[in-house]
Amino acid sequence: MAIIVQKFGGASVADAEKIRRAAKRVMERMQGGHQVVVVASARGRQTDELMRDALELNPNPPKRELDQLLSTAEQQTVSLFAMALDAMGAKAISFTGGQIRMLTDGVYSKAQIISLDSDLIRYQLDKGRVVIVTGFQGIDQYGNVTTLGRGGADTSAVALAVALKAEECEVFTNVDGVYTADPSVFKNAVLLDEISYDEMLELASLGAGVMHFRSVAFGKRHNVRIRVRNVAGNNPGTIITHEVPQMEGVLVSGATIQKDMAKIGLVGLPNVPGTAATVFARLAAAKVVVNDIIQTEISPEKANLSFMVNTGDLPTARDVAQELKTELHCDSVFVRENIAMVSVIGVGMRSQYGVAQRFFEALAKAEVNIDSITTSEIRISCAVDISQAEKALEAVCLAFQLDRPARQRAAI
Amino acid sequence: MAIIVQKFGGASVADAEKIRRAAKRVMERMQGGHQVVVVASARGRQTDELMRDALELNPNPPKRELDQLLSTAEQQTVSLFAMALDAMGAKAISFTGGQIRMLTDGVYSKAQIISLDSDLIRYQLDKGRVVIVTGFQGIDQYGNVTTLGRGGADTSAVALAVALKAEECEVFTNVDGVYTADPSVFKNAVLLDEISYDEMLELASLGAGVMHFRSVAFGKRHNVRIRVRNVAGNNPGTIITHEVPQMEGVLVSGATIQKDMAKIGLVGLPNVPGTAATVFARLAAAKVVVNDIIQTEISPEKANLSFMVNTGDLPTARDVAQELKTELHCDSVFVRENIAMVSVIGVGMRSQYGVAQRFFEALAKAEVNIDSITTSEIRISCAVDISQAEKALEAVCLAFQLDRPARQRAAI
Repeated sequence: MAIIVQKFGGASVADAEKIRRAAKRVMERMQGGHQVVVVASARGRQTDELMRDALELNPNPPKRELDQLLSTAEQQTVSLFAMALDAMGAKAISFTGGQIRMLTDGVYSKAQIISLDSDLIRYQLDKGRVVIVTGFQGIDQYGNVTTLGRGGADTSAVALAVALKAEECEVFTNVDGVYTADPSVFKNAVLLDEISYDEMLELASLGAGVMHFRSVAFGKRHNVRIRVRNVAGNNPGTIITHEVPQMEGVLVSGATIQKDMAKIGLVGLPNVPGTAATVFARLAAAKVVVNDIIQTEISPEKANLSFMVNTGDLPTARDVAQELKTELHCDSVFVRENIAMVSVIGVGMRSQYGVAQRFFEALAKAEVNIDSITTSEIRISCAVDISQAEKALEAVCLAFQLDRPARQRAAI
Repeated sequence: MAIIVQKFGGASVADAEKIRRAAKRVMERMQGGHQVVVVASARGRQTDELMRDALELNPNPPKRELDQLLSTAEQQTVSLFAMALDAMGAKAISFTGGQIRMLTDGVYSKAQIISLDSDLIRYQLDKGRVVIVTGFQGIDQYGNVTTLGRGGADTSAVALAVALKAEECEVFTNVDGVYTADPSVFKNAVLLDEISYDEMLELASLGAGVMHFRSVAFGKRHNVRIRVRNVAGNNPGTIITHEVPQMEGVLVSGATIQKDMAKIGLVGLPNVPGTAATVFARLAAAKVVVNDIIQTEISPEKANLSFMVNTGDLPTARDVAQELKTELHCDSVFVRENIAMVSVIGVGMRSQYGVAQRFFEALAKAEVNIDSITTSEIRISCAVDISQAEKALEAVCLAFQLDRPARQRAAI
């Protein structure tokens, strides 16, 4: 019998009514003849409340104890979920990460999954039970509770789908799936029927995905068919899967906007080996996340180096840059705030020409000034002034016909 | 190095301030050169809240899932407790029942402890850590979470004290210890320095003890020195220990009052073998707790049988009695409500005469009418009308000088 893994995030299990709604999703799949494994997150704001309780006692709580504490929130959800299913007449059993031997490394608060006991889960499924597993948590080899960090519950779900050779991993959320662009910015954005792992990874790293980068990467590595769909209503959602030939006909799958960005430049750096390594080692040590690095030579001896940071990291990044200026003897440091990144993503770019041209033409026609440009194999990004960002996104969306489904778009 | 087990109930860890106060108790013992193992209960009303969440989803939640749910409350307490100790500069590590292999039978909601991994705890103690263990919970042989039911956290603490050969098991509560009588009824009651297990067991089964019957019985069986004391202030509390010779000099250690009792009588039951067995089997099947059974023969063919029940069980007990009347062909059923039981307890009764006489004289002088009398080796109980109960308790307390410490009492 085919197995389906269904993952419900915190908002989808926030209260009794929502848990019942989620449980009905399970019943539907059961009635469709599937065996169902549920992965559930902490209810609503439970994790935040526990974190607040912890900080009240210790401003810097030991990580082991924090994981021991936070893991209780999912344990509560899964047992309540099992009770809800029982009340609907289904047989159900809940498990913590420890109980299914979801073995991780020992890095508290951001552990990586090593293995899990799929035999136990299969045994329970074969007894006609729905198996409900805590997302976001595991245990290390000594039995200490670990949590998986951001995107952890999605990763748990994908790991279970891999281990159980599930037909599909359904990730329930509060949107219908993945859109060509953020509908709150580009009103005519349309829902994608499917998207490739690589495109989804680009979207996730641009902060636009409904799933975390890590779980998509895990799904790609193990070839798990992931369906992102709305817990309310009946929309079939978006399937994330391996690239198929027809995807190449689609030039651009989606466009994104990232606000809260700032650019820092080091002007006139000595152009000697190791300079860039020093810069980024220092930024990493200060825990600054860096994007879109651009280096250009300005003379045989000197180069300019710029990079983007989130506004939240700007004060730290600025301090590091000032220290580096003195240390590396560069001419000056500049900071540009109020930047947004507008990007288009599509695996079709690999095999077709003219994407960059159309992108820049659209921005030119909309009179958007481009600060800098970075690209990957399946992405083009421009830094623009925040005041022009939404206009830029709309222009790009229209240029690539992101207001209609892929198969209704005109050929270039 | 000597080990102390300290148990903190839910009221003693209800919020951050109280957890800190409890943690200070640990620090005191550490500074006194002890290794400390803490057993903590769920914070304040957490268990009640989780129960309410469960009932909202399922009026009859599966017991396995209920234990899985409720056990999270203690897990939260122990990790927060460890954080509080860390903030005070102590090294601490928390463990769930599962993590220390607190193995129980598989009876959800009232499991019995079988064994636990004391090596792991000793290893952590020897690394200079305070070990904080969840009370009230364990796991069965399959790794399912079980809870120990009423008095479970006390029992966990005593079990740990046994396994670790602890010098003492300190049970922190919100009263100074065990009193000769309930100070809210008999104002001049005094705190006992020590009390025997047997006396404490009688007190506990009369509902007057600060500890649950089960944990005291466990302590007696394994000879654990238990100290009941107030989490606030510095009172050394009451030690519960094996009977020592000087205890015999004390005629009566305490007096209790049990309200909310009712008496049911079956009049003119056929006096044939098996009648009483039928009566109590039927009451047990209806989950009625029965106390103070009295049977008297009224003729060679007939007997009267009476017993006490809690007011809460009265409607059920009354129905069962009516059914039995028809079934067993007895003459009539009578019910007497508004009864209270007044009892005195003392191991000294075993070796001294005159206790019953003094007890009844005191009641007579106070003009209290006695409904019925039952005794054990170390207890005498009288059923009296509820309106006379407090007067009766006071008379008995004064007769046995329970308003002064044992060593200041006059000889009989």
